[in-house]
Amino acid sequence: MSTNVHGARPLRFGANYTPSKDWFFGWYDLDLDAASRDFDQLAALGLDHIRLFALWPHLQPNRSFIAPVVLEQLAELVRRAKAAGLDTNVDVLQGHMSGMEFMPVWLSTRHRRSIYADPDVVAAEEELLTAVARRLRDEPGFLGLTLGNEMNLLVTEYPTNLDEITAWLPRLLAACRAGAPEATHLHSTYDAVFYSEGHPFTPAHVGELGDLAAVHSWVFNGTVQRYGSDSEIVRRHAEYLIEQAAAHLNDPARPVWLQEVGAPLPLIADDDLDAFVHGTVQHALDCPSLWGVTWWSSHAVSRRFTDFKDLEHTLGLYAEDGTVTPTGRAFAHAVAQARKDPGAPAVRHTAVLLPDERTSDPRAAYGPGGAVFEAWMRLATTGARPALVRPAQVESGAAALNGITDILRPEDVL
Amino acid sequence: MSTNVHGARPLRFGANYTPSKDWFFGWYDLDLDAASRDFDQLAALGLDHIRLFALWPHLQPNRSFIAPVVLEQLAELVRRAKAAGLDTNVDVLQGHMSGMEFMPVWLSTRHRRSIYADPDVVAAEEELLTAVARRLRDEPGFLGLTLGNEMNLLVTEYPTNLDEITAWLPRLLAACRAGAPEATHLHSTYDAVFYSEGHPFTPAHVGELGDLAAVHSWVFNGTVQRYGSDSEIVRRHAEYLIEQAAAHLNDPARPVWLQEVGAPLPLIADDDLDAFVHGTVQHALDCPSLWGVTWWSSHAVSRRFTDFKDLEHTLGLYAEDGTVTPTGRAFAHAVAQARKDPGAPAVRHTAVLLPDERTSDPRAAYGPGGAVFEAWMRLATTGARPALVRPAQVESGAAALNGITDILRPEDVL
Repeated sequence: MSTNVHGARPLRFGANYTPSKDWFFGWYDLDLDAASRDFDQLAALGLDHIRLFALWPHLQPNRSFIAPVVLEQLAELVRRAKAAGLDTNVDVLQGHMSGMEFMPVWLSTRHRRSIYADPDVVAAEEELLTAVARRLRDEPGFLGLTLGNEMNLLVTEYPTNLDEITAWLPRLLAACRAGAPEATHLHSTYDAVFYSEGHPFTPAHVGELGDLAAVHSWVFNGTVQRYGSDSEIVRRHAEYLIEQAAAHLNDPARPVWLQEVGAPLPLIADDDLDAFVHGTVQHALDCPSLWGVTWWSSHAVSRRFTDFKDLEHTLGLYAEDGTVTPTGRAFAHAVAQARKDPGAPAVRHTAVLLPDERTSDPRAAYGPGGAVFEAWMRLATTGARPALVRPAQVESGAAALNGITDILRPEDVL
Repeated sequence: MSTNVHGARPLRFGANYTPSKDWFFGWYDLDLDAASRDFDQLAALGLDHIRLFALWPHLQPNRSFIAPVVLEQLAELVRRAKAAGLDTNVDVLQGHMSGMEFMPVWLSTRHRRSIYADPDVVAAEEELLTAVARRLRDEPGFLGLTLGNEMNLLVTEYPTNLDEITAWLPRLLAACRAGAPEATHLHSTYDAVFYSEGHPFTPAHVGELGDLAAVHSWVFNGTVQRYGSDSEIVRRHAEYLIEQAAAHLNDPARPVWLQEVGAPLPLIADDDLDAFVHGTVQHALDCPSLWGVTWWSSHAVSRRFTDFKDLEHTLGLYAEDGTVTPTGRAFAHAVAQARKDPGAPAVRHTAVLLPDERTSDPRAAYGPGGAVFEAWMRLATTGARPALVRPAQVESGAAALNGITDILRPEDVL
């Protein structure tokens, strides 16, 4: 039997904070009162936390210079969020935001070198993470740091490999802890970590490193295109990723944070939006490991800004004109329901057996259209509430310990 | 006979402004009072103008967004410079500064596209230049715009060709004029424009486009390494570049601005520094076309900043501790001498004939070690005060009109 962690640990609901005023293009000329108004709006939706993003070139414009004024800005934003009733997680090494990559000059053009392995660069990243953590550790409402937003998106610009990432992530997480030992620190990845064969960030990195395991669920990854905006599969994509993370936890007590999920319009059709938002939240609540759900994003990227993919303008809980979007209404409603009656997470007796990652990279089977994805979805959409288990978990008895009694290979299901 | 333009148009002496406080890494958190103190220091050296650099990502963080606060900062800096007695030229599209390249996110990583030819990008550059010019046009002391600092340094990151640059420069200069019709607008290049065969920016672009023709003289380009820190050739490198620009003017009334010149230590040995600074200024004054001399740079880049080439820390007129450097003392002395007695520019009867640029690219012969460079220096260092002329100028009679009577091919000299 799985324990009801929802009862023991209240679920958290929040938003990835994208400023209403000038998006991050206004970050250099921060309007604190506008930020406070944004935070009040998010609290009004029933949310309890935000994910706040620093801009790396702004925060650390030179390898040996952390801008004091920007540290103070982060602290002030954390304080103002708390004043609105919101706790704050801070992502530091941005880096990637909505298709834009804010890289400091000392890592660009002629100064390009590995952000994952160059000794000088990694030392500077450590210093920065420690400095931010130390500055924020005593701010009420400060939850902890995420190293940076989806830093596995930068592997194209900064090629790397498994060994480098396996060494890098623990070093940077230790740097966070050095600055704020009591806070909750983690790293974040987009779904190539689960779906791309050979990708240097792995499911083990998600499951084994950091105080929370974070997943980012984006159905524009081929899921909605393949299965349709009105499909249950689309509404279960986040749940599936949470189960993927859960299957890779080395410590079953480590919670999984659905740190990003969003409704990209018009890929999600207007008519399907409500079901998508509610279904996504409800299915996530079914996962025993769930820590919370953080919607992407708080405020729409204004259409007066160019060079974004169109869908980036469609994701806000609040629209450009300051009104709540249909997505915002649906999420607020789902949150209210969940707070009123979170329910018990589903007891999972059935699991799909993952191919053995110790012998080959199984990730081609994990993604949309892959055998594991298809088998899990087949079971999930026919009432079975399946988990995922690794052969190593079966061998060690960990699967049985978690109540898993029926273990099916993908080919047994399909 | 050349006319004494020095008499008609007072020579200008200034500095390229590199802020003492946190270099451009502090630009996001501008300390106006520190800037005023910097300006007062430069005025105290007898200077009359600065060249002021915007940071492109700060000023235009999105292709369709010019940050109003940064426009105001530029205006305030121009006002404060004027309060100190300094006029200001503003460089806009930085871009390149001392080996760092500040590029907006919308031109980086996945958004990389030609800064010289992409229609959307060029339109955004035009908008920005017009907006900056319009905002500054009525500020007392505003001289005009330079498109950006040595934008020909960006051709590695953003490949281009002669036709694109030939179309691009006039468009951007027109955009400056649209915003400030009365001001003096120009573009700037590093010396690949004169020395690199096939380089897409050409001497004709220098001589024919913009209200001033700008040259940047950096003897670390091989000159000091080849000829020695104590050589007259090193002290005449700036003069040679001014004569190169003068030879390519389509309008002999267009002045040539020695917009950047500096003393890179220890390539210039301590013992040779005084002679280098005085010689550079005096030889430049010999050029009839000279508008003025602007030293690089005002304030040393602090050594607490990493990832600069060592020589970048050695160039300031003021040192990190706020004292005048030996370079600063020498330049101030040379400026005082020049203001007291600018002398008449040398009458030039002798010229080295450039290879015909209409039939092949002659630039390999122009640089240090090349036949034109060597011939001109041979004559210059033996008292002849040579000019440079193009075959087309000889054919049209323009050379004779300028008083050139002795025209020597490089092989006649060497």
